Amino acid sequence: MKKPSVREKLLRAGLDQFHRAGFNGSSVEDVTDLAGVPKGSFYNHFESKEDLAAEVVDRYFELSPSALLRDTSVSPLKRLKRYFAALGERESGYKKGCLLGNFSTELADHSEPVRFRLERAFNEWMKLIASVIREAQEAGEVDSKAKAEQLAGVLLSLFEGALLRARAANDPKPLKEFLGVGFSRLIG
Amino acid sequence: MKKPSVREKLLRAGLDQFHRAGFNGSSVEDVTDLAGVPKGSFYNHFESKEDLAAEVVDRYFELSPSALLRDTSVSPLKRLKRYFAALGERESGYKKGCLLGNFSTELADHSEPVRFRLERAFNEWMKLIASVIREAQEAGEVDSKAKAEQLAGVLLSLFEGALLRARAANDPKPLKEFLGVGFSRLIG
Repeated sequence: MKKPSVREKLLRAGLDQFHRAGFNGSSVEDVTDLAGVPKGSFYNHFESKEDLAAEVVDRYFELSPSALLRDTSVSPLKRLKRYFAALGERESGYKKGCLLGNFSTELADHSEPVRFRLERAFNEWMKLIASVIREAQEAGEVDSKAKAEQLAGVLLSLFEGALLRARAANDPKPLKEFLGVGFSRLIG
Repeated sequence: MKKPSVREKLLRAGLDQFHRAGFNGSSVEDVTDLAGVPKGSFYNHFESKEDLAAEVVDRYFELSPSALLRDTSVSPLKRLKRYFAALGERESGYKKGCLLGNFSTELADHSEPVRFRLERAFNEWMKLIASVIREAQEAGEVDSKAKAEQLAGVLLSLFEGALLRARAANDPKPLKEFLGVGFSRLIG
């Protein structure tokens, strides 16, 4: 295995650091310390903390467990449910939340470069889910009245909101309500 | 009208400041400057920035436009829909988001006093909505199979997530999807 470059180390450390402590709760030095690289090397690879945060959005989205959505041994609707259950468990469960959600509330009003990446990632994510909903509609598992993109958007919103409330409650109950009542009434 | 006390000025300024810039994006000096009081006076009224943030959670919740939910000239289901539409417009629309949601993603893992207030506020909020859903169930507008508390919890999650995504997209579309497809499939 190739040793990660300094840029790659900074990207991985930035993801960890921002996910755990948020953007305003993290300094460039926190990131370089976590990466184990000299502080001065940061600006050889990124223009600013904001520039790193924008790259981290894309990396976080690339790492999402989308393989579950392509497992055609399982019906489309079951795949979706397994996928959202897995997302709720990702990264020590609801504790650190979803980095896209966290940055949306903390940074969307303050950084246009980060907001742009968030919009793109949510859009790709919505399309990915919509494609499985369309499969479920073709298989007769989901009614065909509603547009797949709209249902996908609402599912994503509900997931993000349930995760946020699970953190406020320090309890996975809102996520369970999403997977139970919410999921089945929306598309089950 | 009585002139607001220094404590009241700090509470109002804290709400504005935290709502606009987040907890980590705000200093005690930002709050005292906005309140127009000497910096030194802060610690006569609050132990810390965190202590102010905890009080701000309660104040934000007290100011929520719940009167719409009590307007019995309108059917319970219509009341709920009007209420969520009004919430989406509150405070320059989706721009600053919901303070409870913002603090949930930024602070729930880092401050137990703030998390506790968030949990309590979301719980009160859920109960308020559940009481109107129960009215709607009694009026035959919503099926009685699902528990009102669970439906209320899912509606709240969906609202918070839609608001978060509206900010990421800089577009009210996710809120419109919530009020259209989401609301009608969940309880319409």
